[in-house]
Amino acid sequence: IQISDNWPGYSLDLFTYPQHYYGDLEYVLIPHGIIVDRTERLAKDIMQDIGDNDIVVLCVLKGGYKFCADLVEHIKNLSRNSERFISMKVDFVRLKSYHNDQSMQDMQIMGGDDLSKLTGKLSFVFCLFCFFMFCKDIVGTGRTMKVLLNNIEKYKPKMIKVASLLVKRTSQPDGYRPDYYGFEIPDLFVVGYALDYNEHFRDLNHICVINDNGKAKYRV
Amino acid sequence: IQISDNWPGYSLDLFTYPQHYYGDLEYVLIPHGIIVDRTERLAKDIMQDIGDNDIVVLCVLKGGYKFCADLVEHIKNLSRNSERFISMKVDFVRLKSYHNDQSMQDMQIMGGDDLSKLTGKLSFVFCLFCFFMFCKDIVGTGRTMKVLLNNIEKYKPKMIKVASLLVKRTSQPDGYRPDYYGFEIPDLFVVGYALDYNEHFRDLNHICVINDNGKAKYRV
Amino acid sequence: IQISDNWPGYSLDLFTYPQHYYGDLEYVLIPHGIIVDRTERLAKDIMQDIGDNDIVVLCVLKGGYKFCADLVEHIKNLSRNSERFISMKVDFVRLKSYHNDQSMQDMQIMGGDDLSKLTGKLSFVFCLFCFFMFCKDIVGTGRTMKVLLNNIEKYKPKMIKVASLLVKRTSQPDGYRPDYYGFEIPDLFVVGYALDYNEHFRDLNHICVINDNGKAKYRV
Amino acid sequence: IQISDNWPGYSLDLFTYPQHYYGDLEYVLIPHGIIVDRTERLAKDIMQDIGDNDIVVLCVLKGGYKFCADLVEHIKNLSRNSERFISMKVDFVRLKSYHNDQSMQDMQIMGGDDLSKLTGKLSFVFCLFCFFMFCKDIVGTGRTMKVLLNNIEKYKPKMIKVASLLVKRTSQPDGYRPDYYGFEIPDLFVVGYALDYNEHFRDLNHICVINDNGKAKYRV
Repeated sequence: IQISDNWPGYSLDLFTYPQHYYGDLEYVLIPHGIIVDRTERLAKDIMQDIGDNDIVVLCVLKGGYKFCADLVEHIKNLSRNSERFISMKVDFVRLKSYHNDQSMQDMQIMGGDDLSKLTGKLSFVFCLFCFFMFCKDIVGTGRTMKVLLNNIEKYKPKMIKVASLLVKRTSQPDGYRPDYYGFEIPDLFVVGYALDYNEHFRDLNHICVINDNGKAKYRV
Repeated sequence: IQISDNWPGYSLDLFTYPQHYYGDLEYVLIPHGIIVDRTERLAKDIMQDIGDNDIVVLCVLKGGYKFCADLVEHIKNLSRNSERFISMKVDFVRLKSYHNDQSMQDMQIMGGDDLSKLTGKLSFVFCLFCFFMFCKDIVGTGRTMKVLLNNIEKYKPKMIKVASLLVKRTSQPDGYRPDYYGFEIPDLFVVGYALDYNEHFRDLNHICVINDNGKAKYRV
Repeated sequence: IQISDNWPGYSLDLFTYPQHYYGDLEYVLIPHGIIVDRTERLAKDIMQDIGDNDIVVLCVLKGGYKFCADLVEHIKNLSRNSERFISMKVDFVRLKSYHNDQSMQDMQIMGGDDLSKLTGKLSFVFCLFCFFMFCKDIVGTGRTMKVLLNNIEKYKPKMIKVASLLVKRTSQPDGYRPDYYGFEIPDLFVVGYALDYNEHFRDLNHICVINDNGKAKYRV
Repeated sequence: IQISDNWPGYSLDLFTYPQHYYGDLEYVLIPHGIIVDRTERLAKDIMQDIGDNDIVVLCVLKGGYKFCADLVEHIKNLSRNSERFISMKVDFVRLKSYHNDQSMQDMQIMGGDDLSKLTGKLSFVFCLFCFFMFCKDIVGTGRTMKVLLNNIEKYKPKMIKVASLLVKRTSQPDGYRPDYYGFEIPDLFVVGYALDYNEHFRDLNHICVINDNGKAKYRV
């Protein structure tokens, strides 16, 4: 779903949101329910691409955990109501230097199980990275993503796919685009769903655009 | 939420929908998740207006039953997590001559409990009619609504409010507007959520615009 | 699921319930979540029995509306994720003399669409009555059920099935047993889910046993 | 909720479960819906104990992620519908030597953010560890738990609490008991919800007892 630059969003008054954020938000960019509907579709697309392979979901912490948990739940629902038998493994990784643009070359996958344990079986594995958002700061240039994928490719899984709930449009148009993504959004300062601003806005379900008041109030 | 006449909607490919409707729908007008989010807000607005009164929800069958059930569920959730004690009664009514523009004068509420039973207490009652859609065919001119409300007003409830998930914009701009409504939509041929076309499309969760193919296929 | 006479139930402290019912309930007989799980299974069983027929769900108001709405939702979910195309019609009926044991012979189906409209197609219809509870007061002797089914059988649907969330064990063991049922319970005074006591306890999600205090408090 | 040693459980036929596990399971110990209901109550208890403090949830991977995600979702729902403003931080940790009884003394918290970053504010923090299950292999002797808590206590949070969905009864009765727990279960070999057996049974929602056939089939 492509959200255009001039999309005015929804007024906050049309939905429910925590009262203590009154005055801190500009508008609702993506209501929570559409995230649910869109994630259900991504799960269906992934199920069709998996084929007879097993699936290893690598959740990229911390931002990706909510999207990943919801996506996995949808995949489980589809699997439960189908005749297919899909073995699913979920693991959690961190990307070192996640927020530091300078050191991307050294980016490493941290904190998961030893991936080499999986080697024997990886030839039948559909390996899915779950991100919350892709933007230039993280992996937009494609350089980081390359480093990241190199880390896993040496274990030779059958397929490596990348899913991201959001893709942010930036001035660098040559960015890496994930295989599955929920929404392409303008270059805005968004919070909500699982995206915090200094640990605030986690109890906000909708993805919203923060206003200057909110930025000032929760600055550390 | 006002959906403008030139809103292109969402492509069907972005969401999940029953495969047997492939080729019968033009686009998604309102994804299911936004209906959920919006209904949650309507429930909150209603809770604030109720005050200390009891609530009698009159679900207008058949179209209104899904919206009504979801709205009641949200009200129950709010009530359960609050300190307030709200007695809620749900009843189901039909409007005779619902589809027949000629006989509106004779429109009557049918099938509910005897409303006169409630008389003794109605002075503390917040009475809520739940419709699925308001358009000129039904109550747009305001005349029908007046007849409808007359039927209940003689029992003197403290407040009578009308909720409708959809309000259709029509050429007659003097239409009655419900107290609570989810979405104002253009004058389109929509199906889904609980709105059928000859009993089809009930298993479609999103509100979609039907195309000519779909109209022809399910014509009776 | 058979709940035995000596099943002690769950303490209310183990779950969430509306605070204003504190002191009015004895214990939780059936937690809400098990109702959800069990209804999902009933939906699956029904889907397997339907075959290639269409389905007409006749919701018996008022008690059956919550169970019916949840059951229909589960059937829709199964239908949406399967390759099958099932046309589903939902209608709402009342049973006159529902509470009056004397006049069962005259029991009639009221308030639904004219069933004769369906005649032409009924030979392919799986017709499902949705009750909330079966006990001797209503249809336990089998006599009422016979009258009820006679009303619909003259339209010659292919199959007539009866679903009930609860079946109450009574001293009259020759009772009619529905084709699908969720739970068989002892002869207790229960409230919750959609079962009220003088319009109270509708905001209680679990099926609970009321205590003497609660009976006295909400007596009319 | 205490599940006694002679609780026969529910027959698998009463609920829905993935067809490929047919023949691999003995019975349903805890249906999925009761987990949902019970977690909602734990969230309410936690909300009452938090007071005016912020909350830091430390999810113990990998087993605890599903319970933790559901618990956090319930806390968010309560927070959203209340007047209180609770800042919530979620982090993910691993316990080194999680499965190795020998090296408990060296157990360390791994993979989370640098906890020392939080020091300045921790005096107002309600710190909650989320486990999936407590049993003697992990922390039953209390020794491990002590090591674990020592790691966090040096940062002096105001309160440290431990939540666990399951507590397994074992022959060692002197086990540490978490502050919040969902169910106390007999010493059985269980799978489901988020508990796998060699990465299988993740698509099973209910907590079930595996049978010999299942153990043999999925042995590595």
